[in-house]
Amino acid sequence: MHYKKGKQSFILQNPPVITTWASVAGKKESEGPLAKDFDITCSDTYFGQKTWEQGEKRMQQMALDKLCEKGNISYKDIGLVFSGDLLNQCIGSSFTLRNTNIPHIGLYGACSTMAESLLMSAMAVGGGFFDRVIAMTSSHFASSERQYRFPLGYGGQRTPTSQWTVTGAGAALVCQNGKGPKITSCTVGTVTDLGIKDANNMGAAMAPAALATIQAHFNDLECSVNDYDLIITGDLGQLGKDALLTMAQRKGISLGGKLVDCGTLVFDQMKQDVHAGGSGCGCSAITLCGYFLNRMRENKFKKILFCGTGALLSPTSTQQGLPIPGVCHAVSISGG
Amino acid sequence: MHYKKGKQSFILQNPPVITTWASVAGKKESEGPLAKDFDITCSDTYFGQKTWEQGEKRMQQMALDKLCEKGNISYKDIGLVFSGDLLNQCIGSSFTLRNTNIPHIGLYGACSTMAESLLMSAMAVGGGFFDRVIAMTSSHFASSERQYRFPLGYGGQRTPTSQWTVTGAGAALVCQNGKGPKITSCTVGTVTDLGIKDANNMGAAMAPAALATIQAHFNDLECSVNDYDLIITGDLGQLGKDALLTMAQRKGISLGGKLVDCGTLVFDQMKQDVHAGGSGCGCSAITLCGYFLNRMRENKFKKILFCGTGALLSPTSTQQGLPIPGVCHAVSISGG
Repeated sequence: MHYKKGKQSFILQNPPVITTWASVAGKKESEGPLAKDFDITCSDTYFGQKTWEQGEKRMQQMALDKLCEKGNISYKDIGLVFSGDLLNQCIGSSFTLRNTNIPHIGLYGACSTMAESLLMSAMAVGGGFFDRVIAMTSSHFASSERQYRFPLGYGGQRTPTSQWTVTGAGAALVCQNGKGPKITSCTVGTVTDLGIKDANNMGAAMAPAALATIQAHFNDLECSVNDYDLIITGDLGQLGKDALLTMAQRKGISLGGKLVDCGTLVFDQMKQDVHAGGSGCGCSAITLCGYFLNRMRENKFKKILFCGTGALLSPTSTQQGLPIPGVCHAVSISGG
Repeated sequence: MHYKKGKQSFILQNPPVITTWASVAGKKESEGPLAKDFDITCSDTYFGQKTWEQGEKRMQQMALDKLCEKGNISYKDIGLVFSGDLLNQCIGSSFTLRNTNIPHIGLYGACSTMAESLLMSAMAVGGGFFDRVIAMTSSHFASSERQYRFPLGYGGQRTPTSQWTVTGAGAALVCQNGKGPKITSCTVGTVTDLGIKDANNMGAAMAPAALATIQAHFNDLECSVNDYDLIITGDLGQLGKDALLTMAQRKGISLGGKLVDCGTLVFDQMKQDVHAGGSGCGCSAITLCGYFLNRMRENKFKKILFCGTGALLSPTSTQQGLPIPGVCHAVSISGG
């Protein structure tokens, strides 16, 4: 039915189907180039709540409810939700699911969570453990900034290498049967650390992890960039994407023309002041669960490798002078 | 091979085997009643590192390395590690695995992580995705106290309902073949919140989640307390355990005589000043990956239901006046 292939990949012989997806985006994101593919946009940064953290939770709830509406299912039809977010102790995810009676597995993969949750959903459904599973994540500019960097009121100046945390939530319904793009194989990432210590340059910290996972995927599955329409990284931003292209070239892998990064797509870098691009769990989540899966349904893209990238730092590790480990999980998605 | 059963459980027809386990414990834990079952004890709260957070990471490394030594395997033989911890952004786990080249899926389930990681390992191995997987977690009294409550130097007085975070790390090797206790079924928990707001009474916040999962397990698998030698909760402590017994009784479930809680076992509550008992991811991890699995190997216990309990709060959610959601994941382990 499915089996391990190579060092860190597995193949799904009966590929689980992403039958439905939903995205919720904030104000800045809804002013960007991907706006028309979001299901819900909201200009209130609090999403009607009293705090940004509760606003992020509300955003995940909206994504979950929109997914159920689009998929014509109710909470009791959901076998399991894999979700996580950037907030300390992942409170965006746990508070979203409290008292919903939906079984929940909490994940922490930083900004790689959309790929990580899809990979785990593929395992849960592909292995026959559950019929219908949801992969979900979120991030919020204001809750992230004050947790990872400075209080927003402080008005700290952003460095040119910094990225803008996307305010958004994405959710995907992964089923044993149905119509939609299929998850055909996955590659689990390793924690890669080349010693980058600048918490305002996360693209550089994550690029080596992205390269390691893309290489592992090609080696394990005996495939190449030619087998894909697009290789999509999560949130390397412009600098991280350039670093990945250069490092790949040195290893003899030409990603040029096929590599796109959600962090460089989600905002208009000429008109919107986001420096190196977008970031956060929500960055790849709303780009996949909006633009990319919509285009796959229209057959514009036939096969993509979705590579969620995460920087596994905490403010504590940074303050203690430690480098930033990166991780990248890859999910191969085919058909429409 | 394996299938979903009932609302939130699954059965493993070819049950994965826990072939090896390892535990590392701190000073206070090594003075407690379970000391002789720990593989490594260490009286230095820094575990030779400069900070408590890095000490916690070192402790997980020691558990991983001891597990490899006991199981006679090297890093390259490990398909995947499922791990997480209580530190913000789970840095104990990610820094343990950096540059080891071991594929890693990060989890966040608060103190339920030992059960959550075993459940996910059962899925990964039982589903045929990986042959050899590790479930691992840790907690550290000093890194937890300063993150969740007060700086230790502040000398804040502890309330009678408070628990003592265990300094310890546990790891289990889950394989497709081999000798050892087997994982026969699992029940994924839902996020349960009855409105408890006292962050110093986490037993009360987690007890309803434990009851919900134990009930779901019995219903889904059509079994009862009579099918088990022991029902083992993670870290309810004395008050949470009493609350669970009372609530279960009201639902017509008699757990008396079969229910034990790692939080009440790991310390000597008469001699060690821990108030309501032990807590933390490490509490159930070192109790399972020491005392319980050792006794199963000796056939003293034949079938246990290991119920990891987690309080999904963060200091931010507490400061914002929100209640404490709880979760509990159950893993049924048989044979020796």
